Amino acid sequence: MRNIVVQKFGGTSVADTDKIKNVANSVIREKKNGNDVVVVVSAMGHTTDYLMKMARDISETPSHRELDMLLSTGEGVSIALLSMAIQAQGYDAVSMNAMQIGIITENIHTKARIVDIKTDKLEKYLDEGKIIVVAGFQGVTPDGEITTLGRGGSDTSAVAVAAALNAERCDIYTDVEGVYTTDPRIVPNASKLDFVTYDEMLELANVGAKVLHPRSVETAKQFNMPIRVRSSFNLDDMGTLIKGADNMELCKPVTGVAVDMSKVRIVICDVPDEPGVAAKLFNTLADENISVDTIIQSYGRLKNNTNDIAFTIAKTDLPKAIELFDRLSDVIEKDSVHIDENIASVSIVGAGMVDRPGVAATMFDTFAKLNINIKMITTSEVKISCLVDSAVAQDALKALHKAFNLGCDIIANVKGDLPDI
Amino acid sequence: MRNIVVQKFGGTSVADTDKIKNVANSVIREKKNGNDVVVVVSAMGHTTDYLMKMARDISETPSHRELDMLLSTGEGVSIALLSMAIQAQGYDAVSMNAMQIGIITENIHTKARIVDIKTDKLEKYLDEGKIIVVAGFQGVTPDGEITTLGRGGSDTSAVAVAAALNAERCDIYTDVEGVYTTDPRIVPNASKLDFVTYDEMLELANVGAKVLHPRSVETAKQFNMPIRVRSSFNLDDMGTLIKGADNMELCKPVTGVAVDMSKVRIVICDVPDEPGVAAKLFNTLADENISVDTIIQSYGRLKNNTNDIAFTIAKTDLPKAIELFDRLSDVIEKDSVHIDENIASVSIVGAGMVDRPGVAATMFDTFAKLNINIKMITTSEVKISCLVDSAVAQDALKALHKAFNLGCDIIANVKGDLPDI
Repeated sequence: MRNIVVQKFGGTSVADTDKIKNVANSVIREKKNGNDVVVVVSAMGHTTDYLMKMARDISETPSHRELDMLLSTGEGVSIALLSMAIQAQGYDAVSMNAMQIGIITENIHTKARIVDIKTDKLEKYLDEGKIIVVAGFQGVTPDGEITTLGRGGSDTSAVAVAAALNAERCDIYTDVEGVYTTDPRIVPNASKLDFVTYDEMLELANVGAKVLHPRSVETAKQFNMPIRVRSSFNLDDMGTLIKGADNMELCKPVTGVAVDMSKVRIVICDVPDEPGVAAKLFNTLADENISVDTIIQSYGRLKNNTNDIAFTIAKTDLPKAIELFDRLSDVIEKDSVHIDENIASVSIVGAGMVDRPGVAATMFDTFAKLNINIKMITTSEVKISCLVDSAVAQDALKALHKAFNLGCDIIANVKGDLPDI
Repeated sequence: MRNIVVQKFGGTSVADTDKIKNVANSVIREKKNGNDVVVVVSAMGHTTDYLMKMARDISETPSHRELDMLLSTGEGVSIALLSMAIQAQGYDAVSMNAMQIGIITENIHTKARIVDIKTDKLEKYLDEGKIIVVAGFQGVTPDGEITTLGRGGSDTSAVAVAAALNAERCDIYTDVEGVYTTDPRIVPNASKLDFVTYDEMLELANVGAKVLHPRSVETAKQFNMPIRVRSSFNLDDMGTLIKGADNMELCKPVTGVAVDMSKVRIVICDVPDEPGVAAKLFNTLADENISVDTIIQSYGRLKNNTNDIAFTIAKTDLPKAIELFDRLSDVIEKDSVHIDENIASVSIVGAGMVDRPGVAATMFDTFAKLNINIKMITTSEVKISCLVDSAVAQDALKALHKAFNLGCDIIANVKGDLPDI
């Protein structure tokens, strides 16, 4: 029975030839531990930006098929160079792109989803004792068209390859030491978490903790593949393990707090209260690929058989959304659209908050003490998010981090002695 | 019945996004002429040098398999960008790499030869009215390994694709206006040739006229595919057509003259006159991939049952060759190896020189008048080459160009009125 470990290194880790040599060391270290190693890498540093700039020089609206052809070359470079660096140290390595492996995706360009990964060639090379260097971020359709996986693509490639090979775990190497209770740039005493559950990580990722893209966590959850997020610069630190729920951990109600400043709130007042109007609005948004995060109907008042609808979208989608409201002028009057760009979503996340109403109360209480007005609230099994004014978001985050005793020193002293909430 | 034209653009033609837009114009121009167009492109400008530099930073002896993986990314970039540039002008285009097409090669890295080209996908896209942008220089083995074709690879890709598709012709766009009677940098009144035969072009290419690599000409000759060498900057000029022999042209005995300064002469004296000694020498050279151009045994004298063997190799192969002579010290004494680096091969080429002994006489006579000593002579059906001192090579070239009336003005006046030789 072999032990397969999949490692993933992002663009910053392979940004130049010296860094690639360092990555080779991390790979060989794992091989020396007696594991079979498959490494998934992204394109080098700013390659993607450089390629995109050339594409935009040529066309304002480059075809998605050709963009995928263009961008997929980036990993071709990094896998070849990393294989050379491993070989230069006397270890057998072989690079493989998505087409060679058979990382099969849907036939959608720039944001394809993986549907299957062939393992015959991978198994063959592992049988031969080779370290396999796999191109992340890219795939191929059953027809041989080259696709890319979109944001978070390389992490997803790594997790999917690990799942296909039934690997022991998938190590995602990053420039941080793991997953923190909150953003250490905002709260300096944020503490690193040893474990988080898939669901907690999903919520943390969705509300702005950028360590892992939610897609990769979803894939890991689906296949119950443990992910370890760890530092490229500190190989002795085991980082944070992301895995399925474990009762042991549920004594801790809140695992982390996070803030997301990337959204904008749209309130549409006086939408006719007829069946199909909201559907038309959200279908049109979906057709344009605009993700809607939080929807609250009858947000403020109810009068004259009209509804108010409030929702949030990404700031980057705002121009497209405004264009779209113009097109829907038969159901949406121009004056009735209100856009609020100065918002932030502040969230607490924890698999242990289920059935503990005190958690929400502590959160609202913390906001009340700071005189912070909550504009919208959304909840899930493992998360409570409050929309607040962006100016007070960082203060809110710090106060929550303190209220739930997530700071380093405190946690060290009060283990098992959580506040009464 | 469709008319397919294959166009090929090299690295300088696609060196930046503005140049790629220009290439798109040339492609669309051909499409507007009513032809189905397949474009073969190389990697952008200095891409290959840049990638090679990174590889050498990582390893002094990078594996050939990984080098091919690395270098093949270059064309992935140029085909995607050129397709975008064609699409930006409203024409339908699709890029294809060697793996997608099925440009099947031998399983040899960095210098594979094409063994087959699948045409089903190409035909399908042409049926759909698409302009196809093909990655030159690269191939794929039946096992899905990525290969590259080595020097002259993209020209060879273009000719082979043209042959596979039964194209009307293959246009190779370069930075010169066509094939000249000799190097215009040395002889300013060198004239552009309207036609040359495959055999003439092969000899011109082999003796240093760098317009086309001999491999591509050989492929064209094999499939009788006409090649047009023409300028990227002057689309109205039809350049030079390379095709099979045509009796009409044979009235002209000499088509061009060329000089090759890239060789070094090696003379090995007193080699034992036993069967197998020369074989051992040349087999060992071949094993090391050192091409030997001209071999003359018993070059100078014959004494004591020993031979002298003289031959030429590329200057770049000299260090490897010297190492090899050391290894063969049982048959080759160190003192008996004489190396002459200051040599040049000066050649006259013409399909019409067969059965015209006067041509050789004119050549030798020209050298005699200049007091030039001929060190070695080799001949083929369509070529006579003389090895001379490199210091007098340019004078020799100019004198031959004049002696055979190859200059622009003269040719214009004396058509059909060739000198009595």
